[in-house]
Amino acid sequence: MKTIAVLLSGCGVFDGTEVHEAVLTLLALSRAGVKYQCFAPDIDQMHVVNHLTGEVTVAETRNVLVESARITRGEVLNTTTLNIDLFDGLIVPGGFGAAKNLSNLATNGSDCTISPIVETFLREFALANKPVGYMCIAPMMLPAIYANAKGTIGRDSETAHAFNEMGGEHHVANVEDIVVDEANKIVTTPAYMLATNIAQANIGIEKLVNKVLEMVG
Amino acid sequence: MKTIAVLLSGCGVFDGTEVHEAVLTLLALSRAGVKYQCFAPDIDQMHVVNHLTGEVTVAETRNVLVESARITRGEVLNTTTLNIDLFDGLIVPGGFGAAKNLSNLATNGSDCTISPIVETFLREFALANKPVGYMCIAPMMLPAIYANAKGTIGRDSETAHAFNEMGGEHHVANVEDIVVDEANKIVTTPAYMLATNIAQANIGIEKLVNKVLEMVG
Repeated sequence: MKTIAVLLSGCGVFDGTEVHEAVLTLLALSRAGVKYQCFAPDIDQMHVVNHLTGEVTVAETRNVLVESARITRGEVLNTTTLNIDLFDGLIVPGGFGAAKNLSNLATNGSDCTISPIVETFLREFALANKPVGYMCIAPMMLPAIYANAKGTIGRDSETAHAFNEMGGEHHVANVEDIVVDEANKIVTTPAYMLATNIAQANIGIEKLVNKVLEMVG
Repeated sequence: MKTIAVLLSGCGVFDGTEVHEAVLTLLALSRAGVKYQCFAPDIDQMHVVNHLTGEVTVAETRNVLVESARITRGEVLNTTTLNIDLFDGLIVPGGFGAAKNLSNLATNGSDCTISPIVETFLREFALANKPVGYMCIAPMMLPAIYANAKGTIGRDSETAHAFNEMGGEHHVANVEDIVVDEANKIVTTPAYMLATNIAQANIGIEKLVNKVLEMVG
């Protein structure tokens, strides 16, 4: 049975994983009869955002691994425990967590770096040449991991420009599209970078998951 | 266009809404081309559970409305703002939030009461004779709202017994089944009371959503 790792970055679009993208990923994997294991880094979130008001709750601190467990009914592993031999591929949902917790893209733009423990985790899949799927804003981490990474974040020209500046090759795509980098075994889709409703997001996410599974073979 | 209200109770199975059940509900509504609006009560959670360890984080307080916004990308209304005329039906996902925040079932069992502002909200749909769908543990609130409510929480005999003690009529069901109370226009499904994976939960939830929409007509 194929086993896919899923990397989370908290719970909630404004300071963690985009919840719909994560759940739709798990649904597509489960419907394909594939086993999955969620992971998250054991680090503090950059900050906590009140999702009702959009404001930062200055006094509060939350942990990425602990909050990610809300999406997974408790089942999530620390990224440092990865045994790459047990996994056939990786999927990384989006949300600001990818730009605030997994990397510092939100504050540093194209000069961003990936959190060292997250970078180690992501590189394991690249080094093992295992297929990966990144969605929404998460593809912005790809140029730091892969040489000549082809990918999409949708249609935002400023973000696309930053992707190219970091050494990637951005391809414009619609919400229902996937972009496939055959050489690096990378699949990307815009998801909520473009989606205006959850059914729309689901089309691209399902395609991404199925393409990653196809590449696993 | 049909418009369905969805009642949330926080974000996370152990102290709020079961996240998969909520997202799968929104997906089914969106795929059916239906508009939805999420609601949650502006009250403190009974407590905060660390979803990684399962332990209560004693020092922390979280608000049900604010945390529910994590599931909805910020779009959620206070239950007190409901204008029943704008809605064709209601769906209530499960999770311990239904038993800890919306009601006190978790502590009071069959002697439980529903939070007064939540009860007012739920009664509006009953009084207007509009179809409703309750899943997982949420059907335990039905006997307090409806006379002779027929419903299911799956196969747990103790919980089923409590449902009957409260004046309801429990029907045993499998994870992929729905139970329909035509007289009261109530649809129920066990969801994660029985589901062992998300694809399984999705089967019953999709059926529940589509049956509620069919009853709207």
